[in-house]
This record gives sequence, C-alpha cells and structure tokens, in this order.
Amino acid sequence: MFEKEIYVKRRENLKAAFQSGKLLFLGNDECGINYVDNTYYYRQDSTFLYYFGISKPGLVALIDIDEDAEYLFGDDATIDLIVWTGSQPRVAEMAERVGVRRTGDLSDFRAKIAGYDKSSVRFLPPYRPEHILKLHEWLGYPVREVAAHADEPFIVAVANQRNIKSDEEIIELEKAVDVTADMHLAAMRYARAGMTEAQVTAKVHEVAIAAGGNIAFPIIGTIDGQFLHNHYHGNTLKEGDLFLLDAGYETPLGYAGDMSSTFPVSPKFTERQKEIYRVTLDAHNLAIELAQPGVNYKEVHLKVGEAIFEGLKGLGLTKGDTREAVAQGAHALFFPCGTGHLMGLDVHDMENLGEEIVGYGGVPKSTQFGLKSLRLGRELQPGFVFTVEPGIYFIPELIDYWEANKVNADFINFSEVNKYRDFGGIRNEEDILITETGNRILGKPLAKTIEEVEREREAAFHS
Amino acid sequence: MFEKEIYVKRRENLKAAFQSGKLLFLGNDECGINYVDNTYYYRQDSTFLYYFGISKPGLVALIDIDEDAEYLFGDDATIDLIVWTGSQPRVAEMAERVGVRRTGDLSDFRAKIAGYDKSSVRFLPPYRPEHILKLHEWLGYPVREVAAHADEPFIVAVANQRNIKSDEEIIELEKAVDVTADMHLAAMRYARAGMTEAQVTAKVHEVAIAAGGNIAFPIIGTIDGQFLHNHYHGNTLKEGDLFLLDAGYETPLGYAGDMSSTFPVSPKFTERQKEIYRVTLDAHNLAIELAQPGVNYKEVHLKVGEAIFEGLKGLGLTKGDTREAVAQGAHALFFPCGTGHLMGLDVHDMENLGEEIVGYGGVPKSTQFGLKSLRLGRELQPGFVFTVEPGIYFIPELIDYWEANKVNADFINFSEVNKYRDFGGIRNEEDILITETGNRILGKPLAKTIEEVEREREAAFHS
Repeated sequence: MFEKEIYVKRRENLKAAFQSGKLLFLGNDECGINYVDNTYYYRQDSTFLYYFGISKPGLVALIDIDEDAEYLFGDDATIDLIVWTGSQPRVAEMAERVGVRRTGDLSDFRAKIAGYDKSSVRFLPPYRPEHILKLHEWLGYPVREVAAHADEPFIVAVANQRNIKSDEEIIELEKAVDVTADMHLAAMRYARAGMTEAQVTAKVHEVAIAAGGNIAFPIIGTIDGQFLHNHYHGNTLKEGDLFLLDAGYETPLGYAGDMSSTFPVSPKFTERQKEIYRVTLDAHNLAIELAQPGVNYKEVHLKVGEAIFEGLKGLGLTKGDTREAVAQGAHALFFPCGTGHLMGLDVHDMENLGEEIVGYGGVPKSTQFGLKSLRLGRELQPGFVFTVEPGIYFIPELIDYWEANKVNADFINFSEVNKYRDFGGIRNEEDILITETGNRILGKPLAKTIEEVEREREAAFHS
Repeated sequence: MFEKEIYVKRRENLKAAFQSGKLLFLGNDECGINYVDNTYYYRQDSTFLYYFGISKPGLVALIDIDEDAEYLFGDDATIDLIVWTGSQPRVAEMAERVGVRRTGDLSDFRAKIAGYDKSSVRFLPPYRPEHILKLHEWLGYPVREVAAHADEPFIVAVANQRNIKSDEEIIELEKAVDVTADMHLAAMRYARAGMTEAQVTAKVHEVAIAAGGNIAFPIIGTIDGQFLHNHYHGNTLKEGDLFLLDAGYETPLGYAGDMSSTFPVSPKFTERQKEIYRVTLDAHNLAIELAQPGVNYKEVHLKVGEAIFEGLKGLGLTKGDTREAVAQGAHALFFPCGTGHLMGLDVHDMENLGEEIVGYGGVPKSTQFGLKSLRLGRELQPGFVFTVEPGIYFIPELIDYWEANKVNADFINFSEVNKYRDFGGIRNEEDILITETGNRILGKPLAKTIEEVEREREAAFHS
C-alpha cells in the first residue's frame, strides 16, 4: 500500500470532477473455481485499489459527492474465520490506513444505498457476473440492463486520472518490469529441446511467485507463437523451433509488467529465423523512436505496419505500394494485432472501462481487420505507460482464408508466404513511459538483439 | 479425456435414476480477473467433466429423459478467434468424442430450453455468479430464488455415482497423488532459513505446472501453520520454525491430489516439535488403521480426537476424561477441523452439491465447533477416496477466546497451553481408497516419520 496521503489526494482529484451524485466502488470478491470455497488467487478491482488501496474481498466503498463523505463498508472477521485465516485487520483499521473515516458493515451499506435515489448512484462497467448480481440487488436494475447504466462521466474521470502515471506508480511499474525481465531471462537460460512448453512456463511462473507477487496475466509460452493468445502448453520443444514467451509480473500493489521475447530452441537462430527477427526488431525500434509526446500512437502503429510490410517485401513475401497496402490492411496478414496497449494496474490498463474512452479519448475505433485490435490510438501524453510489441506471425488458418477469399491479393505473394506456414511467430515487447521530452524504456534491459539472445541461450546448454 | 464408452456408460447409469425431466449441465465459462479478457486459468465444472469430458468454456449439455436424447450446445470458433487461439475443434467433433450425437449452437439451446416447462428442468446447485445469471436468464427464476430450485434427486444421483471411484478414476487419482508427493518433496529439499514463504511456494507451484496440469487448490505454504487456510506467503523462514505445506496437483483430466507435510526449517526438529509431531503422526496412522469398509468416518474422527487429546495429556496440556472431553469437543482447541474429506474431480469432492448429501448421506451434520467442520461422516464404502489429515494447531486467538470464555475449561491446562502460543501447527495428510477388504494409500509414499523427514531435509543443506 502507498502512503495514506496518496489515496486521499487521488480521491480529492476525482471528487473535483463531480458536482453531484454518489460514486460507487465495487471491491471484488473471491471467485470459486469448482465450488465456492476453492478459490482462484484473489485480485482486487483495479479502480478500487487505485482509490482505496485495500486488497481484501467483501468490501464496497462509496463517495457521496452531495454530502462530501467517504465510506468503506465490509464485515469484520469472526473468531470462526480467524481460526482458518489468521488475524484480519478490522474494516475501520483498513479504512484509517487510506484516510477514510466513515465505515460500516455490509448491512449498513445496504441501508445506505437503499436510501439513495438510484439514478444518483454512479458506477463503472461491471466485468464480473458478481458485479451484475450486486448492482441488480442494490439498485434494482434488471440484470440485462445493469451494464447500460454505467456512468460515462465517472468512467471518463477515472480514465483521465489513471492514464497519467504518478511518480510512485512509475516506481512500482518499474519494479514490475524488472521481475518481468527476470522471468524472461529464466526461460532463455532454461529451455531446451525435449522439454514441454509447460516445463518452461512453470519456471517462468516460479520467478513471479517467488518475487512475492503473481503473474499479471496467463503466461503465453509456446512454440506456436503464431497464435497470439495461445495458452496450450502441451507441446514438446524441438530443435529448430522458435519459442515465444509473453509474460508479466504483477507487484503486490497490483501493478503490471508485460514483455515478450522470442528465442530459438536450438542454441542459435537459423538464417531464415534471423531474417524475420530483424524485420520485427527493426519495427520495434522504430516504434520506440516514434513514440513521442504529442504523437498519435495510431500513426506509430501504421508506420510499424509499413516497416513490417516493407521488410517482408525485401524477402519476397509482399508486393506493391507499401503505404497503400497498409492503408488497405494488408500487413495484418502477418501483424493482425496492435503495436501496443496502455499498462498500469491492469496489464491492458482499464480495459474494463472501454477502449474507446481509455485508449482513443472517445474517438471511434477502426473496424478494419488488424487496426481494430489496436488498443491505444490517441495522442501520447507525458505519464502514459504502454507496451511496444510489433510482431510477425504466420498463421496457416489466416493465410488459407485470405488466399481462398483473395483478401488483399494484390499485395501478398501467397506462394512465397506458404513456404513459411511452419515458421511460427516472433514478437519482442517492452514497456515505455512517455516523458516531457521523449520516452523511457521501463525496467532493466532484456536481451533483444540476435546476438544478445544467443548469448543468454548459452546458459541453457552449459548447466 | 477417457475413452468415449466411459462417458456413454456414466450417462446411462445416471439416466437410469430418472423417470422424467430434463437434466441440465452448465459448463463453466472463463472468469475475468480484472477485466473480461484477462482470465484466471480455465476450469470446467467437475460434473460436466464427469459426464461429458470436455474442458472448454461456453458449453452447455442437456439430457432429455422424456425423449431419451443427449445434447451438447456451444458456438464454433470464428476465424477472428482462431487467429488469437489457434484451431479449435468444432462442437460436433467434441460431442462425437464423448458419444453425444445431437449438437447445436447456443441459440439452438435457448430455443430448446424456452420450449420446456421450466419445472421439468433439473439442475445442480449454482456455485458461480455466472451460473445464477444463466439460470435466471434461461428459466426466469428471480436471481435470489435460483439456488432454491436446484433439484435434489439430481444431486443425489450424481453424488451416489461420483462417490464410488471407478478403476480409470483411481488410476488418474493416483497420478495426481504422485505429482503431489513430488511437490512436497521439492519443498522439503529446497526450503531454508532466509527464504520467503513465497519462494518455497513458487517451487511447489513449478512442479505442478511443469507436470502439465495445475494446482488443485491454492497452496498453503507457511510458517504459521496454525491457521488452517492461510494463503499469506510474505513471511521469511527462520531457524526453529516449522514449515507446513498443504498442496495438491490436478491432472489435465481434472482429478485432484491433496497432501500435507510439516518439516523443520532447521535441519532437525527440536525436541518439543518432535513431541507434538509424534502425537499427530500417531493419530494419522490410527485413522488409516481404522478407516475400513463399513466403518463410519465420524467414528474414525472421534477416535482421532481422543488420540490427540490423550497424547496432549501426556504432555500436560489437557486433563480429565478423554472420552468425555472429546464428546464435549475439547480436542477442537487443537484440532478444530475434520480428519478428512472426499476427493475426486474436486479436492473437496462435490462440495458444491452440499456436504450433507455427499459426505453424510443425507444425515444432518453436527453443529459443534470442530465436529461441524468434518466434511465426511458416513459409512465408508469400497470406491470412496478421501484424505486423512489429523493435525495439531496452536491458534493464539482461539486459545485466548476459550480461556476468556472458559470454554471446556475442565479439560484444558491453559497455563501449559499458553507456553505453545508460538508453536505453529503440524499436519500430515495422505489420500486413501477404501477397497473391498480395507484401504490403500494412493500414490508414492512421502516422507512422514521424523527420521524420513529429516533425511529429505538434508538435501536442502547440501546443494
């Protein structure tokens, strides 16, 4: 937890955005896996963490703008519970630590909210079924209509505030990225042909938990790196494969790191792998160069698309005018996702608040295949923290679909592309902060050039 | 997945218990952590796994008893999804693998269930908020009333069937216990003073994931073993501490192992630790000796309570008539939980179906402190698989509460007990199967005598 004053200040800033109403903050509950009491690891809601700092289930907070009063509600532990879990701080003690003076139990909360005009109660978009049930119970909206009542001014105020990372957040994010780099280094120094993806992933997972936090998102650790969110870990690594790792650490305060690395299962990259790796790394470095305050990240993304398209043209995979090709979305055969996303208390920061408000400042997103997956497409401001992660992927299903349906056929040499059907995917990913004058890569550097990666790989073969 | 015939047979057996109605099986969905698309690791509902074997989100199955028809419903992956996740089997393919011939998408399901008399639709108790929302949507029950409509004959039929483990299940459970033993051995051979609990826990977690499955429940790895479900891992191990590990593996098919071990952070137990360890281990061995077909596990539990009370009397901590003390629940100051619980596809098998039906065969449970936490209190039958896990815990908060409120004061020497306030807790846990003639401990043996544990600990100090 940060110092009390930080939470007090954050709430003061938020309150200044409102003339009236009641701001409702739903803390997350435990989440049962296969029955109620066998729970996944607990994760507090990020906005609750941001304004109230307390990572415990069973809490709800309220800021009554009309009465200028802040409340924390929850039930204190009984002796029966303490036998199972150990001593727990009382709700009043937790509230005191973050500067909230008014507290009560959940029946007090129910009585309080029952007394409000429900149209005055502002809440953020529900993203767990438990949120829908609670809002339905407390406010009486039919379950199917609950989400539609989320309050846009509340969303905008939170997004604007959380989008600009403060000094204490940057320190915390840097800690997250440091451990994230350690996770990647552990894999590079460990993976060998004959291991399963699960064994490598387990080693990466160990580093995160041993550091005292957790993984920030499910680990992608795969020789099928062409699938962007592939969580299958049953394959066995073979000589000649590329291993793609996308993994990040979450600090005990809830801040995320998110990096990707790609390395050969064999000690060295093949020449063909090097050719593609160089194209993605050049695109990656270009993105970092271009990401400056005042620049729209959508423009960065399109330049990255051009660099990838152009690089692949040099290898005979694409053809035609690069700028026109990217305007048509032809690069998305190889790069169907975005160049990066905001990062903070969520690895995709505030994705639950809606990408259009958070990542686009309210401007509608493109619906074009590829571009529609870009999560950040607004002018970069000092304090923004986001990922840079161009990649090149050879997805057999997508190649077949485009070829059969003649999608962007003027720009793709399908006969050449088909030679790469078994290639897999390559991605490097780093986390950067926009400063007043440029940007800064967060955390300690991770091997990313071909030479650096091959040097780290040596450790896997000499232990 | 098991062979197709096994699922066909399981469903045939289930159907034989019903004359009419529609049996509804809710598959579990993905569960968002801090936004919808950042999900916890996926876990299918255990009853769905038992009858339909498919571990994928977004499915629902139906057995129409009246028409003798079985259905699997779900939406096939689109090309947009395949780009992110790789090729996915179609619903019809998955259904074929488990012998279900009728399939459809979710809109077909909605049309089908809308045509049923809702009182004919039988379902099991919902344990995730998503289940409540679905049943509310499909059947129209108010959300607060959904759970009350769970169908008791359906619950009883499933509990009776799943309680008796078949040969293929026992093989799978044994695999789970084998890896579980490896997890414990890894901790014994790794933990040293100066490490955090998180570091040891991370090593245990690694073993589970590397084996290709997952943890069966959140790992308890702590120097505060007196708290029974303590998931805080922030303490640093010190010389003289006891480390208590309760951890289990879940196989890719979903079967659980569950063991506990307790070892000294120093290379050897202290004399005081040995004295208490011997009492718990004797109680443990007694429980295994007594757990025979035809014996009620509640009787085993009470004998265990007597052994613990008697053993502690030898150390001066308790006094008075042992049988009377246990009848009053006086042993529960040290042993406030149960001797064991059923285990199968769930680590507490079918806890979501209700302990009274599953673990007590419909007989009401005791409400006495301690005994009320016994999850299995029925006559043991061949095919039952359950844990044996007596323990001794010194819980300062509970000692204070009992002393202040004079709870069982005739049986407790509080002045002596208070000398153990900093002792922690000890538990050994193994998984056993009731056979026709006795019982069998599942999986490979784990160090459990003082000598065996100290021998394994040597590895931690010579590496």
